[in-house]
Amino acid sequence: MQDLESQKKQYLDQFKDRMYGRNLMKSEDMHDSPSEECGIFGIYSDMDLDTFSLSQFGLFALQHRGQEACGISVMNKGRIFNIKDEGLVLDVYKNIREPETFMGNSAIGHTRYTTAGDKKKYNFQPFFAKNEYDQIILSIAHNGNLTNAVELKRELEAEGVVFKATSDSEVILRLIQKNLDLGLRAAIKATMEKIEGAYSVVGMTRNKFFSFRDFNGIRPLVLGAIDQNTFVAASESVALDAVGAQYVRDILPGEIVYTSENEQGLKSFLVKENCRRRICAFEYIYFARPDSTLEGINVHEIREKSGEKIWQQSPVDADIVIGVPDSGVPAAIGFSKASGIPFRPVLIKNRYIGRSFIVPTQDMRERIVNLKLNPIISEIRGKRVVIIDDSIVRGTTSKRLVKIMKDAGAKEIHFRSVSPPIIAPCYLGIDTPSKTDLISANMTATELRDYLGVDSLEFLSMDNLKEILGSSDHCFGCFTEIYPVPPGPNPDYTDE
Amino acid sequence: MQDLESQKKQYLDQFKDRMYGRNLMKSEDMHDSPSEECGIFGIYSDMDLDTFSLSQFGLFALQHRGQEACGISVMNKGRIFNIKDEGLVLDVYKNIREPETFMGNSAIGHTRYTTAGDKKKYNFQPFFAKNEYDQIILSIAHNGNLTNAVELKRELEAEGVVFKATSDSEVILRLIQKNLDLGLRAAIKATMEKIEGAYSVVGMTRNKFFSFRDFNGIRPLVLGAIDQNTFVAASESVALDAVGAQYVRDILPGEIVYTSENEQGLKSFLVKENCRRRICAFEYIYFARPDSTLEGINVHEIREKSGEKIWQQSPVDADIVIGVPDSGVPAAIGFSKASGIPFRPVLIKNRYIGRSFIVPTQDMRERIVNLKLNPIISEIRGKRVVIIDDSIVRGTTSKRLVKIMKDAGAKEIHFRSVSPPIIAPCYLGIDTPSKTDLISANMTATELRDYLGVDSLEFLSMDNLKEILGSSDHCFGCFTEIYPVPPGPNPDYTDE
Amino acid sequence: MQDLESQKKQYLDQFKDRMYGRNLMKSEDMHDSPSEECGIFGIYSDMDLDTFSLSQFGLFALQHRGQEACGISVMNKGRIFNIKDEGLVLDVYKNIREPETFMGNSAIGHTRYTTAGDKKKYNFQPFFAKNEYDQIILSIAHNGNLTNAVELKRELEAEGVVFKATSDSEVILRLIQKNLDLGLRAAIKATMEKIEGAYSVVGMTRNKFFSFRDFNGIRPLVLGAIDQNTFVAASESVALDAVGAQYVRDILPGEIVYTSENEQGLKSFLVKENCRRRICAFEYIYFARPDSTLEGINVHEIREKSGEKIWQQSPVDADIVIGVPDSGVPAAIGFSKASGIPFRPVLIKNRYIGRSFIVPTQDMRERIVNLKLNPIISEIRGKRVVIIDDSIVRGTTSKRLVKIMKDAGAKEIHFRSVSPPIIAPCYLGIDTPSKTDLISANMTATELRDYLGVDSLEFLSMDNLKEILGSSDHCFGCFTEIYPVPPGPNPDYTDE
Amino acid sequence: MQDLESQKKQYLDQFKDRMYGRNLMKSEDMHDSPSEECGIFGIYSDMDLDTFSLSQFGLFALQHRGQEACGISVMNKGRIFNIKDEGLVLDVYKNIREPETFMGNSAIGHTRYTTAGDKKKYNFQPFFAKNEYDQIILSIAHNGNLTNAVELKRELEAEGVVFKATSDSEVILRLIQKNLDLGLRAAIKATMEKIEGAYSVVGMTRNKFFSFRDFNGIRPLVLGAIDQNTFVAASESVALDAVGAQYVRDILPGEIVYTSENEQGLKSFLVKENCRRRICAFEYIYFARPDSTLEGINVHEIREKSGEKIWQQSPVDADIVIGVPDSGVPAAIGFSKASGIPFRPVLIKNRYIGRSFIVPTQDMRERIVNLKLNPIISEIRGKRVVIIDDSIVRGTTSKRLVKIMKDAGAKEIHFRSVSPPIIAPCYLGIDTPSKTDLISANMTATELRDYLGVDSLEFLSMDNLKEILGSSDHCFGCFTEIYPVPPGPNPDYTDE
Repeated sequence: MQDLESQKKQYLDQFKDRMYGRNLMKSEDMHDSPSEECGIFGIYSDMDLDTFSLSQFGLFALQHRGQEACGISVMNKGRIFNIKDEGLVLDVYKNIREPETFMGNSAIGHTRYTTAGDKKKYNFQPFFAKNEYDQIILSIAHNGNLTNAVELKRELEAEGVVFKATSDSEVILRLIQKNLDLGLRAAIKATMEKIEGAYSVVGMTRNKFFSFRDFNGIRPLVLGAIDQNTFVAASESVALDAVGAQYVRDILPGEIVYTSENEQGLKSFLVKENCRRRICAFEYIYFARPDSTLEGINVHEIREKSGEKIWQQSPVDADIVIGVPDSGVPAAIGFSKASGIPFRPVLIKNRYIGRSFIVPTQDMRERIVNLKLNPIISEIRGKRVVIIDDSIVRGTTSKRLVKIMKDAGAKEIHFRSVSPPIIAPCYLGIDTPSKTDLISANMTATELRDYLGVDSLEFLSMDNLKEILGSSDHCFGCFTEIYPVPPGPNPDYTDE
Repeated sequence: MQDLESQKKQYLDQFKDRMYGRNLMKSEDMHDSPSEECGIFGIYSDMDLDTFSLSQFGLFALQHRGQEACGISVMNKGRIFNIKDEGLVLDVYKNIREPETFMGNSAIGHTRYTTAGDKKKYNFQPFFAKNEYDQIILSIAHNGNLTNAVELKRELEAEGVVFKATSDSEVILRLIQKNLDLGLRAAIKATMEKIEGAYSVVGMTRNKFFSFRDFNGIRPLVLGAIDQNTFVAASESVALDAVGAQYVRDILPGEIVYTSENEQGLKSFLVKENCRRRICAFEYIYFARPDSTLEGINVHEIREKSGEKIWQQSPVDADIVIGVPDSGVPAAIGFSKASGIPFRPVLIKNRYIGRSFIVPTQDMRERIVNLKLNPIISEIRGKRVVIIDDSIVRGTTSKRLVKIMKDAGAKEIHFRSVSPPIIAPCYLGIDTPSKTDLISANMTATELRDYLGVDSLEFLSMDNLKEILGSSDHCFGCFTEIYPVPPGPNPDYTDE
Repeated sequence: MQDLESQKKQYLDQFKDRMYGRNLMKSEDMHDSPSEECGIFGIYSDMDLDTFSLSQFGLFALQHRGQEACGISVMNKGRIFNIKDEGLVLDVYKNIREPETFMGNSAIGHTRYTTAGDKKKYNFQPFFAKNEYDQIILSIAHNGNLTNAVELKRELEAEGVVFKATSDSEVILRLIQKNLDLGLRAAIKATMEKIEGAYSVVGMTRNKFFSFRDFNGIRPLVLGAIDQNTFVAASESVALDAVGAQYVRDILPGEIVYTSENEQGLKSFLVKENCRRRICAFEYIYFARPDSTLEGINVHEIREKSGEKIWQQSPVDADIVIGVPDSGVPAAIGFSKASGIPFRPVLIKNRYIGRSFIVPTQDMRERIVNLKLNPIISEIRGKRVVIIDDSIVRGTTSKRLVKIMKDAGAKEIHFRSVSPPIIAPCYLGIDTPSKTDLISANMTATELRDYLGVDSLEFLSMDNLKEILGSSDHCFGCFTEIYPVPPGPNPDYTDE
Repeated sequence: MQDLESQKKQYLDQFKDRMYGRNLMKSEDMHDSPSEECGIFGIYSDMDLDTFSLSQFGLFALQHRGQEACGISVMNKGRIFNIKDEGLVLDVYKNIREPETFMGNSAIGHTRYTTAGDKKKYNFQPFFAKNEYDQIILSIAHNGNLTNAVELKRELEAEGVVFKATSDSEVILRLIQKNLDLGLRAAIKATMEKIEGAYSVVGMTRNKFFSFRDFNGIRPLVLGAIDQNTFVAASESVALDAVGAQYVRDILPGEIVYTSENEQGLKSFLVKENCRRRICAFEYIYFARPDSTLEGINVHEIREKSGEKIWQQSPVDADIVIGVPDSGVPAAIGFSKASGIPFRPVLIKNRYIGRSFIVPTQDMRERIVNLKLNPIISEIRGKRVVIIDDSIVRGTTSKRLVKIMKDAGAKEIHFRSVSPPIIAPCYLGIDTPSKTDLISANMTATELRDYLGVDSLEFLSMDNLKEILGSSDHCFGCFTEIYPVPPGPNPDYTDE
C-alpha cells in the first residue's frame, strides 16, 4: 500500500513534469539568444537645450540594447554632472529632483547590458575622469569591445594609471585623458591608434563634444541633426527619431566627429582613410530595433527578406507559420508572404519582463524564463507548423519551444533559423557563449534536427544572408570564425 | 534684425513642433484605452505545495490586468500571512527572504490597477480581517465594482464597522466577516445577497478556501485543477497555464466554490439558480490576454474574427494593413486574411514601459507616452494604409496616430475600430472616462472621421460583434448604455 | 636575535597591557551594576492638551530607567495612536511629522531597559490590544515583573489568547482585555487578583485613563496634578517636575486610580485594604534620579546619609574621598561632610554614552566600557583614597577601578559600598545576575577585600540602611533573600 | 460668565507659566556657553596597528569638543580611506562592516562642532584631496580658525582651485596640495607662511604623517607615544590616555612634526623660532575635559583654583555652594574648600542629551534645553546659595537659573563667574555670539546683578585668572579684545 508521503511526492513530480513539459524551460535558456550589447547616445547644441531629458528619450529608445544600468553625463556651463544607476531609464531618472539643474548644451548617455555578477556601479557608464579638485573633465560612453585591453591596461598601470572598473572602456577613457594635453582631437587620434577591436564612442570634455568609431565600423553609430547647430550621435536611428532629429549619415569607420571651441558646428576628421565598413551582421538579425536604419538599410526589411529567402532556400508544405517573438516575427511574415502559408501570432510573450537576465537570483530567473512564452493551443492542435527563429545558439530554448509545440498538438514541426549556424564566439562586443556551448559548433544540422525532434530544420545560408544584406561588407565572425580584427591574446573580455 | 534670444526660441519651437508632430502625443493619451482592471488568483491543495510561488506565477500571467500593486495571502498551518506592495509581481516578490516560510496549502493573490493618487497601501489587495489577537482570520481578493457600496458602507458603519480603505472591496470583506458566525458558506451567501454589481472573488479563512462570482458573471473567473485535490481559480485561463493546471470550467454566475474542513475536494453551491451569463464584451476586445480562453471562447480567435468581420462590413482598397499594438494586431491579421491586403508590422512599440500610467509625474508621463510608438517610415511612405485599433475612447491617441502615419507619408488612411462606438462609461469594473470625454458620445462617425482627418472610418457594428461572440449573453453597457446591473445612486466608485 | 614579527607582537602585547592596566575594563563590567528597569508615565486631562509632547518630557526625565526603546500611546478623540521604537526619547520622537496629529487628552509612555537579544519591537511598550477592525481599544505600560506569568500565559492560551511578545507585561494586557466587558475598574480588579509580583501600570482605553500598583508597592509610582482636571502618574517625581505638575501623593499599594466617562476628575479604588508598603530599597541606592522624591523621601538625601553613615560605621584615616560617578558621588560628599576628609571629583566619566549596554556588538561594547572612566592622576598620586560606590555586584568593575587607582599612584585604597552585600537575585523587576555571579554570595567581606586588593573594605550594614530609610517597610530581597512575594516556580522572567 | 474656551486658555497659560517659571528656559539659552570647537586626533606607527579603532577611542575621548559629526582617514598600504558622517563617534562607527579593511599604520580623525544650517557633509572633516585617478593623496583635520581665509580663497580660485566646502580648513588643504611638489615639509612650511589665525592640524599623505600648530599655539595640540615608533597627536591629553599613549610634550607654536619615508621615527621642524605660546585661556575654563593636561597644566586643578580664588577675591556669607554642571562643579568644590561653605550637588543635569544643539528643530530644542537642569528643592529651600558658573555669555541661562533657584525657595543668591566678563567675540576658533549679544559688553556688573536679580555678583578678575594660569602667555581675547592675531577683514568665519 502506498503511503501518503510517497503519494504526495508522486503528485508533485507529476505536477513538475507537467509544468516543465508544458510551457516551462530550463534556466540556461535565458542565455539562448546572443545577449545584447550596449547603447550609446550623445547630443550637442550651441544653445541651452534640455539635453538631459533628450538623452533620456534617446536612451529609452535604445533600452533594448541594455537594461541593467544606464547613465547620463551632462555638460552645464563648464561643469559635467553624471547620474548613473542600476535599472531601466524610466526608473533611474524618474525621481531626479530639480532636473532643471541638468539643463546644458551637451549630454552623453549609455544603457548597459552585462552578465550577472558584474553589476558593480564602477562598471556603469558613462565613465569619467576628474581633475585634482574633484571636477569631471572628461566623460565617455562606449559600445564595443577591445581586443588589446589587457596589454594596454598593463602599460598604463606601469605609468601610474589607477583603474577602478573591470571594463575595458576605462582604457579608452584613460588613454584620452593621458593625451588630453595634445588637444582633444589629437588625444582621440592617439587613442584610436593604440586600441584595437570594436568601439563606437560618444564623449565630452567641459566644453567639447565628440564621437568616434573603430576602423571597421563594427558597432553601429549614426549621426543626426535637430537643427543646424544641434547634433546627435547614437547607436541606432530610432534614438534620432525619439528626439526629433533627422538622420544625417552613419559615422564612418575611423572617423572622429567633434566640436571645437572657436567655430560653430560639427567637424569631421578621418584618422585613417578608406576604411572598409564591417558592421556586425547580427545587428540586423537580432539586436537592432526593427524600426532602425543602419548604414542605410532598414532592419525590419532585412528581417522580412530573411523569411522570404529561407522559404526560397527550402520550401516546405505546412499549415501555419509562427515567429518566435519578437525578432522572429518579421521573418515569419516574410516567409508567409513568400509561401502563402498563413502567419499565425499564436506564441504569446509575457511583456512584464524586460529580458530574462534582469532578475538576480537563479531561482527566480528559472521561473521567469519559464513563463515567458505561452501557446494558443487551439490554433496549433493538428497543424503542420513552421517555426521561425532569428538564430539557434545553445539549442536549449529551441528544444523547449519544440516541446511546447508538440504538447500543444502540432502535427509536424519545421524549424527555420533565419541566420546561418553560429559556430564561433564574438570578441567584438556581443556576449555569446564559448564554443563548447554553441550547439552548431558541436552538431551537424542533421544531428541538431534529431536532437530537437523536428521534422525539418534549415539555416539561412551565408550566401543568402550576404545577398539580403546587399554586400559582404559586414562582420560575420560568429558564422565564419573570420573576424575583421583578430581576437587578441586574452579574449575573455566583458563586452560593453 | 532678429536677436539671438528670439532665434533660440524659434529653434526650440520648431524643435518641439517637430517632435510633437512626428511621433509624440499629448499627455491625456495615456488614458485613451479603457484602463485595465484587476486580476485575481487563488489556489488550494490538501498538501503542502509551494502555493506562494505558484501564486506569483499565476499573478505574473495576469500582470496585464494591473501593474500598480500586487499582493498574496498564504495560509500556512492555520496562520495567514499577507505580503503586498506597490510594483510588478517580479519586483515585489524578488527580495522575499526565506520564501519557504510562506509554503502552505492555500494562497490567494491580486494584481491591482488604479488611477494615480489612490496609490495608498491600504487599498492594495488581498484585504484581510484580524481577530482581537492581531491574527488574520479572513482574506479576499476582488475584481469588479459594487454599485451599492456607499449605502452598504453607511449601513455597516452604523453598526460599528470601521473602514480603512477607500475601496469598495472592503465592503465585501466586512460583510463576510460580520456573518462568519453563520458558517463560511452562509456568510458568503448573505454577502452576495446584499452586494450589487460586478464581482469575482477568491478568498480564504484560516482553514478554508473559496471563490465566488456575481449573478451576471460580469468579470471573468475560471476554474482549473493541477491534480484531483489541487484547485485553482483565476481571472483568466493563462494563469492556469502558468501553474500547470488544466482548465475545468468557468465558475458560474451566482456560484460559490469552496472547501470544507471535513471533506476532501471542492464543493459548489449556487446562491441563485439559472443566472444568465453576462461577461464583459471588452474582455475579449481589449483586456484579456490573447492566449486566454473565457467562457469557452479563445480571445485571440475573437480578435482575428473581428478583423475579418470589419473587412466584410466595410471593404476598402488599400496597400497595407497595420494593427495598433498589441490588441489591434490579431484583428489586423484577420483583416489581412479576409481581404488579401498584406499585414505589415510597421508600428513599433517600445516594450520598456509597463503601461503608461505607471510613471508618477505628469511631466515624465507626457514624455513616455510620446515615445511609445515609432513607425517604419520606408514601409508606409506612399502607401494606402488601413489602421486597425481595438477601440476609440477619447480619440486623442487615434488623432496622434493618424498624424504619425501622415508624417511618415501615408497616401490614404483608413481607420477601423474593431469594437462599436463607446458611448457610455462602465460602472462594473473598468476605468473609462466620463461621457464628456468619450468622443463617440459627442461626435457622429462622420464628424469623427473629419476630426481624425482620415479617408474613411468604420466601427464594428453591434450586430457583428454579437455574431462574433456567438450570442448576446454579454455586458455591452459601454456600447449601449444598457447594463445588466443599474449604475446605482453614486456611480463614481473606484474600480478594483 | 629577536625577529620583527615577535618584536611587533611584544609591542602590541605591552600596548594592550598598558591600555587594559591603565584605564580600561573588561566587557562583563558593563553589567556590574544592577541593571535599570523601566520608567512609566501617564497623563490625563479633560481638555485638549498636547499630552504627546508632555509625555516626551516626562519620559525624557525618566530616561535613566531605560534607554533601549521608548513608546507613547495617545488617545485622541476616541482613537488611540501608538508610536514606539528603539532608541532614546529624543531620537525616537525628533522626526515625528505633524505631531499635532497626536494632540489628545490622554497619553501613556514607557522607557524600556532590556538585556541584549530581546530587542524585538514586539516587546516594546506600551502594549496594546485591537478590536476586529484594527483599532486600539486598550493600551498599557508596565514597570515590574510578575512571578506567575508563565502559568497565567498557559491558562490564557488554553482559552485561545495569542501572545505576541515574550514579555509578561502582555499577560496584564490580555487579562484586562478579557475582562473588559465587566467594566474597566472591575477588569483591572480581576487582573490584580490574578497576577502576582511587582507592577506599576499606567493605561488607557479609548475614553478612560487608569493607573494601578501591586499590593506591596514594590516599584515606585507617584501621582501629580497640573491643574484640577489634569493628572499625571509616573515612576518618579522628576517626571512631574518635567511637565510642571505638582506632586500629590504616591499611589498606594493595591490602589487603582482611574477616570470615568460621566464624572470629572480622578477616582480611587483600593482592591485590597491596608496593604503594607514595600518599595524597593535599591531605588534609593541606585536607580532613581537624585532629584526624585519617592514615598516622601528624597533620593539624594538618602545617598548623602548613606555616606555619612558608613563613615560612622567604619571610620578611616585618608587623604581624599572619591565617589564613583554618578550614584556614588552624593555618598562621597556625605562621607566627606561627616569625616572632614576632602571630597575630590577626580574620576572623570565620559558622558557621550547612554549607558554601556546601548551599543550592540560585543566588540564595541568592550571598547566603550573601557573608555568610560579616566582618573586625574595628579590628584591621586601618593594619596590615601576612600572610594565610595553604590554597591558591589559582580566585583569586576570594582577590581578594575582599584587597578586604575593603583596605576594612578594611590598609596592606600579604602573601598566603601553604601549598600549591604548583594547575596541574591531580584525577581521583582531588576536585572541582576544569578547567584553564581554575585560576588558577595560567594565570598566573605575579607575574601573580597583581598580579591580586590584594597586596604579596607566595608559594606553599609542592614541596620544602618534601615535607619537611613527610616523604616523596614521596603523590599530588601537582594540583601536578605527574603522577598515580599515568593519568586514563583519559573523565576527566569524578563524584567520590564 | 466665562466660557469653556477662555477657561481652557487660562489653564494652559497658567500651565505654561508654571512650566517655564519652574525649571524651563528659553531657546537661546542653548548658546549661553561659548560653543565647543573641534577635536583632532592623529596616530602613526611603523607597524600595522588597528589605528582605525584607536582613532575611534581617541575621538570618543574628544567627543566633548564636537558632537555634530566626526570622521577618520586611514592610510592602509599606500591607500587612504575616509569615513565621515553626522553623529557621535559611537554612532558613526558602530555599523562599519569589515573594520579590518581599515587597519593601517596611520590614521587621523576629527570631531566637529558647528552651528546649525551648516550641517553639510562637504564640511565634515578630515578633508581630502584626490589625484586624477580618484585616489586620496592628502588628508587633514583642523581645529581653529583662519583670519585671512577669504583672501586666500580668492587667490587660490584665481589660480583655478575649486572649493567644495564653506569651511576655511579647505584653504589649508588646497595650499598644502598646491605645494606638494616641493616635498611635504616644504609644502606645510609654505602653507603656514600664508595662513593666519589659529590652527592645530593633523594630516597624512599616502606614506607620511604630519601635525602642525600655528605661531601662537592658540588651539591645544599634544604629542604622545605608545611605543618608540608609534606616535599620537591630539587636541587634549585625554585622547592619549584613551589609547594607552604616554604624554611626551605639547607641540610647539610654529612646529611641524612629521614622518619621512626613509628614516624611522618622528621629526620636528620649527617654521619660526621662539614663538610665544598663547594658548586659549577658555580651554581651561570651559572647553577641555577636567582630566586633560594642556601645556603641562591640569585643567581640573585650574578650575578648582578658580573657585578658591574667587572666594578670596570676594568672600560671602552663605549656607551652601552649588556648581553649574559640569564645568562649574570643580570651581564650586574649590570655593567650598577655601570658604568652608558646604558644596551641595543639588542641581541635577539630565545626561541623555549630548549638548543642546544636537537636536535639529527649534521647537524640540526649546523643550530639551528646558529639561536640562532640575533642582533638589528640599536642599535649597530657605538657604543662602552661592552659584558658581564657568562664565556668563548672553546672561539668559543665568537668569533662568536664578529663577529656578528662587522658585526652589533660595533665601539669598550669590552668583560667581570664575572667568572675567566676556566683552568680545572670538575669531580664533570658538563660536561666541556677536558683541551685541554678549551681556557683559552691554552691562556693567552692577546692572547685570540687578538684571539677574541676585544678591551679589562677582567675576574672577583678569589678574586672578593670570595668577591661576601662572602666566599671561595665553589668548585672553574675549576678555580683553586684544588678540594675538588681528581679526582680519571679514571676521564672520565658521569655526572648525
